[in-house]
Amino acid sequence: MKTALSIDIGGTSTKLAMVDVSYKILESHRLNTKVCKNEVDFFEVLFHAIMPLLQAYPKTEGIGIGAPSCRADAIVGATNLPFPQRVEIVKILETKYALPTFLIKDGSTAALGEGLFGLAQGMRNYVVLTLGTGLGCGIVLNNEVVRGSNGQAGELAHAVIKENGRACKCGKNGCLETYVSATGIKRTVFQLMADSHTESSLRNISFSELTAKAIFEAAKQGDLLALAAFDYTGKILGRKIAELGMTFEPEGVILAGGLASAGAFLLQPTIAQMEQDLLPAFQNQIKVLTSSLDTNEAALLGAASLVFNNVKERTGLYIS
Amino acid sequence: MKTALSIDIGGTSTKLAMVDVSYKILESHRLNTKVCKNEVDFFEVLFHAIMPLLQAYPKTEGIGIGAPSCRADAIVGATNLPFPQRVEIVKILETKYALPTFLIKDGSTAALGEGLFGLAQGMRNYVVLTLGTGLGCGIVLNNEVVRGSNGQAGELAHAVIKENGRACKCGKNGCLETYVSATGIKRTVFQLMADSHTESSLRNISFSELTAKAIFEAAKQGDLLALAAFDYTGKILGRKIAELGMTFEPEGVILAGGLASAGAFLLQPTIAQMEQDLLPAFQNQIKVLTSSLDTNEAALLGAASLVFNNVKERTGLYIS
Repeated sequence: MKTALSIDIGGTSTKLAMVDVSYKILESHRLNTKVCKNEVDFFEVLFHAIMPLLQAYPKTEGIGIGAPSCRADAIVGATNLPFPQRVEIVKILETKYALPTFLIKDGSTAALGEGLFGLAQGMRNYVVLTLGTGLGCGIVLNNEVVRGSNGQAGELAHAVIKENGRACKCGKNGCLETYVSATGIKRTVFQLMADSHTESSLRNISFSELTAKAIFEAAKQGDLLALAAFDYTGKILGRKIAELGMTFEPEGVILAGGLASAGAFLLQPTIAQMEQDLLPAFQNQIKVLTSSLDTNEAALLGAASLVFNNVKERTGLYIS
Repeated sequence: MKTALSIDIGGTSTKLAMVDVSYKILESHRLNTKVCKNEVDFFEVLFHAIMPLLQAYPKTEGIGIGAPSCRADAIVGATNLPFPQRVEIVKILETKYALPTFLIKDGSTAALGEGLFGLAQGMRNYVVLTLGTGLGCGIVLNNEVVRGSNGQAGELAHAVIKENGRACKCGKNGCLETYVSATGIKRTVFQLMADSHTESSLRNISFSELTAKAIFEAAKQGDLLALAAFDYTGKILGRKIAELGMTFEPEGVILAGGLASAGAFLLQPTIAQMEQDLLPAFQNQIKVLTSSLDTNEAALLGAASLVFNNVKERTGLYIS
């Protein structure tokens, strides 16, 4: 059976899957990226995981990779990975396995997955935002992933949305992801605890221990501070989606990742702010939805789609 | 000789041109949109101007129109035009003249013009910002104009960039165009006159009389307040271009319209802020340039390109 090897490289873990042409995940593995000290370490672990997979599935047609901070066929300047320098991953894997290998940004693999199997099915124009530790973004216009001149497009996390705002790991202040992400809402909770007298069960949790999930659980219990944190986050997100909405006029915006699990707690303030910010001609037509897919799975299926030809063609997979 | 009739509809005036296949403007006219009280008035004036042009050029192949606030084949909710209601302009002209008629946003005709004859020639991915009374925007990705689900994409003017910022005609506060436009820099000059003691020749000009051109002239004389106004405007513009830069990764951003005539006075602070905001992987690669074309002419040629088939194809001229 024809298969594709999917690799989703992340700062915490790297997921591998063997996917068949009907997009069934036949087998998947998770590698610990964090324990790798450098590029050599990482590739040793990766090769070790790939080898038995390719032996078990000899009809593998190619390798599809999603990774942070791509530039054309290389991973470059990924601060969360053990190799911040330029790594020509496509060339490395093509040389080693003699299989066509394709690389796009992780936000784009998620977007492909949503388009193939998620709520973006049938949409020609849509945006996927993955709200996890950071904020990822994939944009599809006219059925093509927007890649930009060097394959780096869709980097929305570091748009500065507040002057002199929160310090970001990138060195700037006020980046979108310092507000809109699992980490962002946690910072918001601490800001609200500092600014207000609002009672909250979250006041008993340390910064190190607080998670977006705990904030969601508190919100479900009616915790006013947790609700205020979702409101604050949704307003910033809604404003940005309104801007994207008027810039691209997508049919939908799909929210994925840990923070999106909060569903209506996040959607309600987001949609309210978006509609308020949209010009009348754009109102009541952009669907904002939380993903129905497992984020990891969506990214792996999206990466597999790079390999299978019919889909490869529609992803605009070339670098001009 | 085969020709195209171009129409560029604006709030102050509407420009018409007969353009040949080599993109030479054979004849052009300017109608006063402002004196038209309503749709009926407007079409009377328009028909009156079109008739002799079509008689003089019987081989006209079609009509290309650029207008504010389009939605598919209609002009809708254009607050600067004498018909804020929905006007099915494509159907009206096709019925009257039996010629294929094409409509896109004015920002997109400007972008097509820049791609055909301006500084965006050879760029696959670029953005054109027209900085006049308002702020217009046209985006080209992978050689296609981004139109969005209903042909309304590229509406960047009303992105809210400052909470509780300047009042905008749209009813919101802090819209980008209240800062970055000919009108925006004028408001900045008045804000700076209010906030500072900086001496300036501009203090002798009333709000009603002040123009972006006068601010440019003052800057050329070394007027510190005028220079500060360009600096303030450029910082806001540069921040937004950085965001667009990371979202689309365009090869270039072309600034056109009245305010762009100021050249380096606007470019210098814009580029400095943009580079500061860009993640390292995006730095030193996005060209920000002021247009070398006459804005009106670029829009008319862009509209003509909708008609001539070779270009029509690459504009993605369809509404899904």
